[in-house]
Amino acid sequence: MNTTELIQQIRAKKSYLCVGLDTDIDRLPKHLGNDVSAIVEFNKAIVEATSQYAVCYKINTAFYEQYGAKGWEIMEETLQLIPNSCFTIADAKRGDIGNTGKMYAKAFLKNMSFDSITVSPYMGRDSVEPFLEYDKVAIVLGLTSNKGSVDFQHLTTPNGALYEQVIEKVASWGNPNNMMFVVGATQAEKLKEIRSIVPEHFLLIPGVGSQGGSLKDVSENGLNSNCGLLVNSSRGIIYASSGEDFAQRAGEEARKLQMEMSTYL
Amino acid sequence: MNTTELIQQIRAKKSYLCVGLDTDIDRLPKHLGNDVSAIVEFNKAIVEATSQYAVCYKINTAFYEQYGAKGWEIMEETLQLIPNSCFTIADAKRGDIGNTGKMYAKAFLKNMSFDSITVSPYMGRDSVEPFLEYDKVAIVLGLTSNKGSVDFQHLTTPNGALYEQVIEKVASWGNPNNMMFVVGATQAEKLKEIRSIVPEHFLLIPGVGSQGGSLKDVSENGLNSNCGLLVNSSRGIIYASSGEDFAQRAGEEARKLQMEMSTYL
Repeated sequence: MNTTELIQQIRAKKSYLCVGLDTDIDRLPKHLGNDVSAIVEFNKAIVEATSQYAVCYKINTAFYEQYGAKGWEIMEETLQLIPNSCFTIADAKRGDIGNTGKMYAKAFLKNMSFDSITVSPYMGRDSVEPFLEYDKVAIVLGLTSNKGSVDFQHLTTPNGALYEQVIEKVASWGNPNNMMFVVGATQAEKLKEIRSIVPEHFLLIPGVGSQGGSLKDVSENGLNSNCGLLVNSSRGIIYASSGEDFAQRAGEEARKLQMEMSTYL
Repeated sequence: MNTTELIQQIRAKKSYLCVGLDTDIDRLPKHLGNDVSAIVEFNKAIVEATSQYAVCYKINTAFYEQYGAKGWEIMEETLQLIPNSCFTIADAKRGDIGNTGKMYAKAFLKNMSFDSITVSPYMGRDSVEPFLEYDKVAIVLGLTSNKGSVDFQHLTTPNGALYEQVIEKVASWGNPNNMMFVVGATQAEKLKEIRSIVPEHFLLIPGVGSQGGSLKDVSENGLNSNCGLLVNSSRGIIYASSGEDFAQRAGEEARKLQMEMSTYL
């Protein structure tokens, strides 16, 4: 799925919800057992219960890599469960140069067919460009939602804070169709300013809910004429219940967010 | 292996050579065939031919991830081939927060038992600290060897260039035993200055040889009383020959570098 199709889905579903499949075996409902393969069963039920309300799924690669080769199998199986009508994100935060960058891009965007991947910008242009070669989307870290974002992202540079420089410069290497930016939901007050730098780009917003970000603030400051937002919720949806009704409850939480989103669109 | 044992090995072998196992199936000698499992056979021969001259092996995870689950198996098998007397690096350039960071650390430092992992600093302190929890080593990107390093790493901040700020601040989160920094060999003229910021830390130096960095310049500017350098060579060693003598030629190239290193120590 490309950005144009994503915009169509957002309009059709009146939703810009991204569900984060940060699936942790220690948090699975007891009745699913604790074998690694239960992760796929869990993800399948979550996707089925939420896909009418969500336009996007984000797979957090760390949660799968911890199981080594088996974990990669599970990640690939999970990706296959996601309907073609939803945009997929490999939340992998890769970034390396030359041949190495090309191989990460090939692994996620070609071999596994994710629609997009999150990318760390520290190494500069030749670490981002390999992810633009597949007519897919590089989602580059701009301003993150964590406490440590103040350490470097807010440092003053000759043209504003580092994160502003990063967003402005990185945006010039691609276009709003092949590039998005990660902006943490806890940074809602900065969203207006970021919108003035990248009025047309999609912003992937983690941190609503469990990390304390407000959907209302994010939407009021971040929406553009094509929506331009993907708001991620992981734990608030997938762990809404730890009982046998986990999927139903996940669906209800997704629906609540979709309903609220429809009022902002 | 920890940093103290690494220093002992450096003294014993008179070497600070790190061999980069950036093994690309398209560059394997013809007689090994082109099945993915040939990568392990190739790596085995390279390790056997070079381990008397090298103190360290660096596995570039991108080259393995491109084969999905099978690639992770091969990466784990490759790690098992490396003798305990050599320090191991997962060149994975990971970096994420909270639970996600912890899972990356667990995947590489606990489950796979790498001695260290390369880490991207953009997200700040809470993205680096999870890698310090295993009594192993986080090798944080400081100043990289690629063209794109000028895009952000050289930006002026109130306390010097961004890379100087990164190295200074990150160093304060750990110590020379659980932290190293990546500094590209093409940045030899900056090494003296970086040494003044982190006099005791090990620096991992990629870019000697194929990327144009000079071992002499790097050594003159970067060595400290415990050596303090790991100089990586990948293509110059592992692809020294594309014939049946590939391992022998790799050993010869490693030996040349070790001999030169012994004169600087």
